[in-house]
Amino acid sequence: MPSAYASHFGINNVPYGIASSTKRATPQAATRIGDEVIFLGPLAETGTFKHISAPLPEIFRQTALNAFAALPKDVQSQVRSTIQKAYSRGDYSSAAEPIGDVTLHLPVQIGDFTDFSASKDHVLNASEAVTGTRAYPPAFMKYPSVYAGRSSSIAVSPKPVVRPHGQFVEDYTVPQKTIIFGPCRALDYELEVGAVIGKPVEGGQMLKAADADAHIFGLVLVNDWSARDVQALEMNPLGPFNGKNFATTISPWIVTLEALKKFEVPAPPRDETVSSFIDDKNAVNYAINLEVQLKRNGATETTCRVGFETMYWTFRHMIAHHTIGGCELRTGDLVASGTVSGQGDDEHGCLLEQTFNGKRPKTLSNGTELRYLNDGDEVRFTGVAGLPEDGVGFGDCYGVVMPAREF
Amino acid sequence: MPSAYASHFGINNVPYGIASSTKRATPQAATRIGDEVIFLGPLAETGTFKHISAPLPEIFRQTALNAFAALPKDVQSQVRSTIQKAYSRGDYSSAAEPIGDVTLHLPVQIGDFTDFSASKDHVLNASEAVTGTRAYPPAFMKYPSVYAGRSSSIAVSPKPVVRPHGQFVEDYTVPQKTIIFGPCRALDYELEVGAVIGKPVEGGQMLKAADADAHIFGLVLVNDWSARDVQALEMNPLGPFNGKNFATTISPWIVTLEALKKFEVPAPPRDETVSSFIDDKNAVNYAINLEVQLKRNGATETTCRVGFETMYWTFRHMIAHHTIGGCELRTGDLVASGTVSGQGDDEHGCLLEQTFNGKRPKTLSNGTELRYLNDGDEVRFTGVAGLPEDGVGFGDCYGVVMPAREF
Repeated sequence: MPSAYASHFGINNVPYGIASSTKRATPQAATRIGDEVIFLGPLAETGTFKHISAPLPEIFRQTALNAFAALPKDVQSQVRSTIQKAYSRGDYSSAAEPIGDVTLHLPVQIGDFTDFSASKDHVLNASEAVTGTRAYPPAFMKYPSVYAGRSSSIAVSPKPVVRPHGQFVEDYTVPQKTIIFGPCRALDYELEVGAVIGKPVEGGQMLKAADADAHIFGLVLVNDWSARDVQALEMNPLGPFNGKNFATTISPWIVTLEALKKFEVPAPPRDETVSSFIDDKNAVNYAINLEVQLKRNGATETTCRVGFETMYWTFRHMIAHHTIGGCELRTGDLVASGTVSGQGDDEHGCLLEQTFNGKRPKTLSNGTELRYLNDGDEVRFTGVAGLPEDGVGFGDCYGVVMPAREF
Repeated sequence: MPSAYASHFGINNVPYGIASSTKRATPQAATRIGDEVIFLGPLAETGTFKHISAPLPEIFRQTALNAFAALPKDVQSQVRSTIQKAYSRGDYSSAAEPIGDVTLHLPVQIGDFTDFSASKDHVLNASEAVTGTRAYPPAFMKYPSVYAGRSSSIAVSPKPVVRPHGQFVEDYTVPQKTIIFGPCRALDYELEVGAVIGKPVEGGQMLKAADADAHIFGLVLVNDWSARDVQALEMNPLGPFNGKNFATTISPWIVTLEALKKFEVPAPPRDETVSSFIDDKNAVNYAINLEVQLKRNGATETTCRVGFETMYWTFRHMIAHHTIGGCELRTGDLVASGTVSGQGDDEHGCLLEQTFNGKRPKTLSNGTELRYLNDGDEVRFTGVAGLPEDGVGFGDCYGVVMPAREF
């Protein structure tokens, strides 16, 4: 019987990850087709890629995909089509193992992690939940909001997340001033998509949005776990820090822009004129159907269904903004979208929005009250581009909430 | 004739850096005494460190100090005293080259860069310059303000800094709404000190402030170059990003806590009670005399003289706060103090404070008006612990402002 996500990994996907197994103890480059993981180093050794002028056998043996991600797009494209042909011919089985036999690792070494806030609905909903007013940040019509995240805390799914300690006001739902220390009481998920940088952007290169795709290797799902009470207190004046830096989870397979090409959809029109460097006549999003499933006390419920195509700012916009001051982007850097939310009641990519910062709790189908995450809650993101039969998905990005540490 | 900073590097300093030369083309570990740079790999090959049980010859050949920084403090201490003895005996000359013959490189591979805001005076002055009101951030009495910085933009002194482009309101001195794109008009320096992490802090380790010194390898000077107009627009809601990520400069030599031990001074008393994990009965700062010299049109002027001992929050406090939510710190991570400012008019560690965000320009001794940095301005930070005759200093952290790129 195929696994839950076999259908995400059709022949038109060919994502890249880092895998190991009993037989292949050293983590190394791999792809997944259906429920088979194909190790690319061993595949290269059979001569499969010998027509491609790149040191692939060596690159595929590395413990992170950075060197592969930095290769020219046409080389990556040849690798993809060669894998597809080898699979179709059946010339790959000595390099393949069942998905159940492998362990997946962080696919790239991530130098810097940047987290944007690119969804209009998220910005407005979060603003209302926290301040009572639906308002865009002062510059939101000119560029997406953004902060630098923590790269040391990024782990690959399915890493458990320990409820963090922190300092916060005693009751995060009402304005008051008593600051206490203890385990977070408002633990949240954030449904995001992340772009992994391929070809680096040199310091001072100052990209235009229209040219940014050349630097994106592919996309992953991202859970930007958030301690809302900790975050609320620290945000003024320098933005989120301990409210975010305890854990970020990404899905293990990087889906390339080439695989996603078919699912490009025009980005929403601009509400205001924007600066020429960030203006992108052909701005595109990707039609990716995202879902959040929350499992509590044995019962699973879908708490969010939203399309990634709703995003106001696209990855091209984000990357152009990121580089316009001269900032370098290195291969493997992760640039995430911020919470993906739409207009509907079931399109909230985080609980801050969905439960109005805990002030308007929902009742789950099993009767329990949902404000924020409880210990033991399991959070699973999934993403499928286009229709299920297109066979291009992200698998899942999963985490279970563990109780706070003793302190 | 000794160089300008020979006196900073007395026998009681023994800082660590990464150097190369014509003779030694591969960057590698070195120390500096007076005007001599001693390459530690070659020194190790003469058997100097053979009584120390650590693979030092191999560690000193690496192109970054991370492996050395991660060694136990007692091993680092043995290395220091061994270098001091070898120097005193004259048994080092085959490994030494004049400072003028070497190139200095980034001393450590920096995984994540964290920038705090730990000075009361800076916080109050900056608040007044921007908002008109002297006010602490909501949590400042409980923990220092902080944001995640950009590690890819950190360079070693004396790297030139290109004036960044960005989006900002047309006149940063008055509230209004026209957002334009162009070269920054309010380029600033920030005088900071940074701690380089030695022994890593595991995710979930949750340090107490009193235990944090064990994880600090040493200190450097930091110039957190800031585009104040870009920063002002982007700060709401997620903190600084493009206003900071275009350039950060650090001084090349890491001065160890052991060398600084003699210059410990008690930190100021707490104004309010703080949480037990961050409470540190023996909180110490370091008596480091910091200076900023600004050279414009050929004339040099000292724009700031301030003691690092004025800081309200110490590195121990900062690191405890950083780890209390479970965040991992890796060897080589840089944790900076934020702008160091005191109460006096000549104790402002940035021009935002000194010129009241450009609204109260100063007149330099050569008659030119100082609001923010001009193209061609040269900014030099220096730091000396204790008295000059103590021989423990940081050398300088230097940068010249280059004109904005064509766009």
